[in-house]
Amino acid sequence: MATGQCGHPVVKEMMVLEVQTKPPRPHWYELYLQPCVAELLGTALFVFIGCLSVLKDSKDTGLLQPALVHGLALGSIIAILAGISGGHLNPAASLAVWLAGGLNITMLIPYCLSQLCGGVIGAGLAKAVVEQESYRNSTGGAFSIITSDEQVPSALVNEIIMTSFLLFVVCMGAVNGKTKSPLAPLCIGFTVTATVLAGGSVSGACMNPARAFGPALLAGCWDYHWVYWVGPTLAALLVSGTVRLLLGDQSTRLILK
Amino acid sequence: MATGQCGHPVVKEMMVLEVQTKPPRPHWYELYLQPCVAELLGTALFVFIGCLSVLKDSKDTGLLQPALVHGLALGSIIAILAGISGGHLNPAASLAVWLAGGLNITMLIPYCLSQLCGGVIGAGLAKAVVEQESYRNSTGGAFSIITSDEQVPSALVNEIIMTSFLLFVVCMGAVNGKTKSPLAPLCIGFTVTATVLAGGSVSGACMNPARAFGPALLAGCWDYHWVYWVGPTLAALLVSGTVRLLLGDQSTRLILK
Amino acid sequence: MATGQCGHPVVKEMMVLEVQTKPPRPHWYELYLQPCVAELLGTALFVFIGCLSVLKDSKDTGLLQPALVHGLALGSIIAILAGISGGHLNPAASLAVWLAGGLNITMLIPYCLSQLCGGVIGAGLAKAVVEQESYRNSTGGAFSIITSDEQVPSALVNEIIMTSFLLFVVCMGAVNGKTKSPLAPLCIGFTVTATVLAGGSVSGACMNPARAFGPALLAGCWDYHWVYWVGPTLAALLVSGTVRLLLGDQSTRLILK
Amino acid sequence: MATGQCGHPVVKEMMVLEVQTKPPRPHWYELYLQPCVAELLGTALFVFIGCLSVLKDSKDTGLLQPALVHGLALGSIIAILAGISGGHLNPAASLAVWLAGGLNITMLIPYCLSQLCGGVIGAGLAKAVVEQESYRNSTGGAFSIITSDEQVPSALVNEIIMTSFLLFVVCMGAVNGKTKSPLAPLCIGFTVTATVLAGGSVSGACMNPARAFGPALLAGCWDYHWVYWVGPTLAALLVSGTVRLLLGDQSTRLILK
Repeated sequence: MATGQCGHPVVKEMMVLEVQTKPPRPHWYELYLQPCVAELLGTALFVFIGCLSVLKDSKDTGLLQPALVHGLALGSIIAILAGISGGHLNPAASLAVWLAGGLNITMLIPYCLSQLCGGVIGAGLAKAVVEQESYRNSTGGAFSIITSDEQVPSALVNEIIMTSFLLFVVCMGAVNGKTKSPLAPLCIGFTVTATVLAGGSVSGACMNPARAFGPALLAGCWDYHWVYWVGPTLAALLVSGTVRLLLGDQSTRLILK
Repeated sequence: MATGQCGHPVVKEMMVLEVQTKPPRPHWYELYLQPCVAELLGTALFVFIGCLSVLKDSKDTGLLQPALVHGLALGSIIAILAGISGGHLNPAASLAVWLAGGLNITMLIPYCLSQLCGGVIGAGLAKAVVEQESYRNSTGGAFSIITSDEQVPSALVNEIIMTSFLLFVVCMGAVNGKTKSPLAPLCIGFTVTATVLAGGSVSGACMNPARAFGPALLAGCWDYHWVYWVGPTLAALLVSGTVRLLLGDQSTRLILK
Repeated sequence: MATGQCGHPVVKEMMVLEVQTKPPRPHWYELYLQPCVAELLGTALFVFIGCLSVLKDSKDTGLLQPALVHGLALGSIIAILAGISGGHLNPAASLAVWLAGGLNITMLIPYCLSQLCGGVIGAGLAKAVVEQESYRNSTGGAFSIITSDEQVPSALVNEIIMTSFLLFVVCMGAVNGKTKSPLAPLCIGFTVTATVLAGGSVSGACMNPARAFGPALLAGCWDYHWVYWVGPTLAALLVSGTVRLLLGDQSTRLILK
Repeated sequence: MATGQCGHPVVKEMMVLEVQTKPPRPHWYELYLQPCVAELLGTALFVFIGCLSVLKDSKDTGLLQPALVHGLALGSIIAILAGISGGHLNPAASLAVWLAGGLNITMLIPYCLSQLCGGVIGAGLAKAVVEQESYRNSTGGAFSIITSDEQVPSALVNEIIMTSFLLFVVCMGAVNGKTKSPLAPLCIGFTVTATVLAGGSVSGACMNPARAFGPALLAGCWDYHWVYWVGPTLAALLVSGTVRLLLGDQSTRLILK
């Protein structure tokens, strides 16, 4: 917000000095490696606390515990990592954000790998702090809600719609210029709380391949695991298409501009 | 925040250039069609997740699940759509906002139709992801809480007051200049959580004809459906009258200025 | 935020014009009557929904329903009325805010009377929408938790501490310049949720004479009613003293400056 | 936001006057003593309401009551004390913030002592308002979840990870320049809600020596008390190391800059 540009020499010098105290360009570490570290650590914390909320769930509170834990933890982590990596913590989010124009393609694969590693680390830490019986009873926080082929269609549709809701809030609240909001991190977290509460008993409302992969790997629970990759990926395509064609602002939208 | 208006030629040119990089006027699509698309998609997501929260409600948590889901989802959607359409997602909200001076009359009917279509789509998606038994037991997420004529007066009064509360937060928090708040989307969502928790067992605390219409159409459940149109409509008149006559700022208020 | 005051005639004229389009001073209605109307309507809505949350409380969710309803409703109402009256909705809050320097003394009595009238109206509306049996079972949302003299000391101490917590957040978050926060409305609401959850089973955690008076009048339930006036009043003195002597900034603090 | 620096004498004089109305430097009380008073009072309120939420916990709501009370109360107190002391309320937070560069070393010991005193006062107030039976049943709100040596490793690891999560949000959201967020107080509170919900049944999820010490002293319950000092201290070292070496911005990070 440069103000009072009146061309007086003294003012000009002050402005130049002010500019010089800012670093001329960020270190390569901050541009390329730090975002990946942030995604890895953030996803590890998110998957750790998410798994634990399922493994130590209380009997009397329905889906409130996992819904609040996943949502509040995600919102908080996004708020503090947004300035470094955007705080995706989710390969589907990175895919959608890239397609919507909010991420450089060179970072897409590193982000996704960091998130998957983080998911494995988080699931491992959760395994370390709970007794073996709880761990087995809840299949290590992995998604085991789909038990027969009959459930697949509704579970897959549910994952697609729920992830679309989440990624819609991500892309519109944090990428698309006209609708960006400082409340976006909290809104993304609250959306997860709502989707887990409403959709958790249909398909688990995972919405995140990194959240699905880590616990599945450590618990060896791969039944219908593909649903948690295919659903979020389709949702990422659906949402980025909607943003690019219909709801984006003039610089995001590809048509009608 | 016009700054640096010093009349120096260089500065003037900079300002002109800055103006020229902004689009001279938005595309007609962005002015007329995009807001309707946003209302349709937003209402579809809201009604989908709202119905699902009722259809798959847990037995032990009272009204917490539907209250949190409706409130958190609504707040998040409003936050990301406010920049496009205002994020009404509710014909009663559009009516009240228009009467309070926050919506052009040419958009009122298109908004309401988009919201009703969105409600039908959302209810249809909810029907697609739950098993038929759950769907029938909860009448598809439609409001079936009024079962006798005796309940009508208290249910109608409750719908009027609860919707007045909601529209009061909408009109004061997002339309009236003096009381506008960046926290408005969250406040509107939290208001819905509070009204559903407190008033859900009296009348359902629907407060939204689009939320009532979609599930009613798909489940064929029209008993006392008119309550969810008359209540919110009266509330819209009541709230916009209060804002226009008593609580609005100097440019919103019609009297005593 | 006057900027670019460079003394060029054209700019000066623009500024003058801009100033003239703003009203020279607000209408007397906006200065004196509108804040009282806002306090009355806001308190009516708050007491209505608060009473209803108790009258229709679910059996399985402890104090979650009244705690969330009181807190979320209060936070939302404060957010939208802050620009008009400050959104006190509570005679104890008005007293503390006046003592801390945030309210003109001429408005103190009108505010308190408006809040008490609002409380009666809110309690009356709650009575109108619930069946008589629920109403009697919960003594109309009035506080009936103190049933013997033995409970009085701990209940009174609890009301004092809980109200101090609430008024502390009000005075520091919304009055004291150095600690004012745009998040204050939400924080005040969240504080109420926390105090009701933690202290509701000790003394009801009313913290507000207007919330106590309305339902007590309509239900004729005056046992130990004085606790809900004495506790909050002492808390207002305690908190305003702490702010004035210890925690206020240089313009609020009376000593050590 | 210095504006209108145009070198015209009148404007210059206005600026000088404006500067002179600001105090030339804060009083020593505001620099050294007031922050300690704020930490003491804030911690007392936090520990009081935290203990009470455990002592009067409802049977049917799992960990929701203590989780919401600790989180919402902490977030609100931080929001209003941030401008005075930072609102640490936790010796582990003060240690981590000092190591991350957000606190002067002269204040570290005074902060920690104030917090410990506050914790004792808060626990004493909680003891004063509950009947003796409830107090004994819940060991005065002290942490008694670890009952055998076998539980120690998982409890200690859980305390380390949970406190790391909390301090990570504190250091990144409130200290590190590049990721600072105005939402930080709410995020810190929501993080506590999430960690208590997910980890409360493993180790209590205390994450705060002041919260552990006060109730332990008053209830005389010192079994495995060291876990609540060692865990948070290790977490403070871990988090500040991560911020200083990996995630800090150019002025916080010690390497790769």
